[in-house]
Amino acid sequence: MDVISNPLTIFSQLDYLRREGKRIGIVPTMGALHEGHLSLVRHAKQACDISVATIFVNPSQFGPNEDYQRYPRTLESDLQALDSVGCDFVFTPTMEAIYPSGYSTYVEPPRVAERWEGAYRPGHFRGVATIVLKLFMLVPAQVAYFGRKDYQQVAVISAMVRDLGVPIRIEACETIRDPDGLAMSSRNRYLSESERVRALSLSHALHRAQMMLDAGHRSPSELEQGMRDVLLSAPVDSIDYAVVVDPETLDPIESIQRDAVALIAARVGTTRLIDNRTLVRRT
Amino acid sequence: MDVISNPLTIFSQLDYLRREGKRIGIVPTMGALHEGHLSLVRHAKQACDISVATIFVNPSQFGPNEDYQRYPRTLESDLQALDSVGCDFVFTPTMEAIYPSGYSTYVEPPRVAERWEGAYRPGHFRGVATIVLKLFMLVPAQVAYFGRKDYQQVAVISAMVRDLGVPIRIEACETIRDPDGLAMSSRNRYLSESERVRALSLSHALHRAQMMLDAGHRSPSELEQGMRDVLLSAPVDSIDYAVVVDPETLDPIESIQRDAVALIAARVGTTRLIDNRTLVRRT
Repeated sequence: MDVISNPLTIFSQLDYLRREGKRIGIVPTMGALHEGHLSLVRHAKQACDISVATIFVNPSQFGPNEDYQRYPRTLESDLQALDSVGCDFVFTPTMEAIYPSGYSTYVEPPRVAERWEGAYRPGHFRGVATIVLKLFMLVPAQVAYFGRKDYQQVAVISAMVRDLGVPIRIEACETIRDPDGLAMSSRNRYLSESERVRALSLSHALHRAQMMLDAGHRSPSELEQGMRDVLLSAPVDSIDYAVVVDPETLDPIESIQRDAVALIAARVGTTRLIDNRTLVRRT
Repeated sequence: MDVISNPLTIFSQLDYLRREGKRIGIVPTMGALHEGHLSLVRHAKQACDISVATIFVNPSQFGPNEDYQRYPRTLESDLQALDSVGCDFVFTPTMEAIYPSGYSTYVEPPRVAERWEGAYRPGHFRGVATIVLKLFMLVPAQVAYFGRKDYQQVAVISAMVRDLGVPIRIEACETIRDPDGLAMSSRNRYLSESERVRALSLSHALHRAQMMLDAGHRSPSELEQGMRDVLLSAPVDSIDYAVVVDPETLDPIESIQRDAVALIAARVGTTRLIDNRTLVRRT
């Protein structure tokens, strides 16, 4: 496994491999890796000749009062984990390589970025779209792997790539969960033991939404109330949103005619968690 | 010469050639080609194996009261001209291919876009940066050629490419002028005969600035007054700006210590013209 921090080096090595006909898969991460990230690398290895993980804690996607400073940085164990799953390259750029003095170009993200995370974390998707586009420029991959846990992020990146014609395919991979259902997240390590129990209410609420749909409820607001009931009985400490929306536009819908997606963002203690579930209309 | 309007076709053909080791040069244009554009294609042919011109009148870089509707569209003669200089590919995308329904991703351009054209044409460089980035994605070239006549545009695109790490080199080529000094521009065809005479004052004013610098004047405001005097004696009908600024940041400077650039935007009749000149401190 090659660990490379110089952008010119990673570009020229991978560009050479691409010219040789190799298929390259990229897994952008902020480190603090868990089984969810590693599953993305396994997907990349399965479908591509070369797998590349990137590790960069991107300041531009954090709000001023968010956890950029305390975000977990665990480079050594990250590299061990990536090596153990057979990752071929790890790109670990410095801050100066990504945002040199005078840096001032950003991506104004597509419309699907406006609601939910976009509304509760102003500037977040501007930072995400910018860093992801830059990583796609520096790492000439044909396929990029993202976890569905960040459902709206995948939608934003897919729309950006489509709009700008970036020659890369976006693969959304299923959320990896702990056995009890908690969606894996680097931020789970902020949780105390009792908070972790309360955090289970997110996946329970999503489960409740599917049960209600199976029972014939077609009204998003009914399902949303059902999810809130579960979250508030845990209780979580606050709910940013718990909604059932169009799976592509993420706009509110009148009733669930076909599939929909349930999105939740809630705070447990000081930790903000998100989770989602595609709601399948079976009847 | 191949004329291609399908983005997938141009990408796959050029990607194949690039894998074969071919060096590809791109010349983005809005059509209405003149000798300035053709000189860019000649530069591309000289330094690259494959030359690609693109023709697309980009609506997002025109303001609501600007000349998008009346902008000259001369596809047939453009193709003849490109063929005559040996251009290899012409990419002529449709509106739907560039801005399909739902398109909503834009580039927030770098800081150097803020003044001058950026201030007088709000949104212009957002549109320029977006279309140029998209063309760079669809046409996988290693070098891109732009005319220095659009001095700030070159600065904006260069900064965008540097910031985002787009793997392409930006070449700025000298302004091509008519024998009497008028900088070639697609918009020159808007000028009546008498307006064309008054339009010469832009290049004359730039010449005056260099003469004043040669004569020992070091104050930008003195040179700016000298340029205004020339423009107003033509007279032009209005001056947006006539300034002497830092050649890289385009910020105002206290005095001319090394090189500087003089930038002019003025209106003659209803036609808005721009021109510029690098001021060389010879003493």
